[in-house]
Amino acid sequence: MIGPTVKELLLENQETFLIPAKNVANVMYQNPLDHCLLVLTKVGYSKIPVLDKGDRFVGLVSLSEVVEKMIDLKEIDMEKLNGLTVADVMQTHVSVVSENWDLEEVLHLLVDLPFLPVVDDQQIFKGIITRKEILKAVNHMSHELERRNLLLSKTDPILEKQKIV
Amino acid sequence: MIGPTVKELLLENQETFLIPAKNVANVMYQNPLDHCLLVLTKVGYSKIPVLDKGDRFVGLVSLSEVVEKMIDLKEIDMEKLNGLTVADVMQTHVSVVSENWDLEEVLHLLVDLPFLPVVDDQQIFKGIITRKEILKAVNHMSHELERRNLLLSKTDPILEKQKIV
Repeated sequence: MIGPTVKELLLENQETFLIPAKNVANVMYQNPLDHCLLVLTKVGYSKIPVLDKGDRFVGLVSLSEVVEKMIDLKEIDMEKLNGLTVADVMQTHVSVVSENWDLEEVLHLLVDLPFLPVVDDQQIFKGIITRKEILKAVNHMSHELERRNLLLSKTDPILEKQKIV
Repeated sequence: MIGPTVKELLLENQETFLIPAKNVANVMYQNPLDHCLLVLTKVGYSKIPVLDKGDRFVGLVSLSEVVEKMIDLKEIDMEKLNGLTVADVMQTHVSVVSENWDLEEVLHLLVDLPFLPVVDDQQIFKGIITRKEILKAVNHMSHELERRNLLLSKTDPILEKQKIV
């Protein structure tokens, strides 16, 4: 369990954690894969969310997966994308969190994922929580914790003596 | 400044922070760009270090920068890479840290970078420190800090009374 003081400090700027959906580049799963390639290259992100027509989150698509579809031994050919859509390459088994995300879960999932999609109870895509924003919070907490609090080791004899614990 | 107890906990598994150079995919700056494209696609990372013949770190190259060089309006053509080398697209103004890195600096730089190259005093590439490993340490610290220590707010009247501060 994350301690209450650490948690409170990590969450002090939690309103900055969510990058709202309107600021996150995305593609639709029915989009042609060549369109997706152009979007990915233009935005410069290696991986972006895939939505359906109802703005529901359905997966993630990465530039390397699209390029892989174009490469055949030592040749690359955009024509290989003809007839393919985002749905043909996207990853669908993706961890997401709800709008009432739990800090412990978010910190745990971000060890393995560069960002976490946030969805509501209808699976509507609300935005992402990124490692960048969490690391800002970690910096804040690391600097403030011992500035604001006195820490006594639980094995320190002073506690016994002062009858604090 | 990061408090001493927070710092100690964050560094408890610091031997895992460095992914050693031998485990990090890289390219040489003189490599043809089509070779670089194949390496990037094969390893599945969006960005990798660029070294010179003496294993010195000289920059970073990303898949999206290489793909951008191949795209011309709505066409993609690997022939556009002919004659180009990694040196033509790599980023050279890259933050690095020394082997005696400082935690505060690492935490600060990783807010904006997915990983940090580590070099020795000859600029020889020694490996990378990733957000992933740092986030593992953050999880460990968040769980252990208040399990091992008693925290008293510095504005708490009990401290005055007990003459602890």
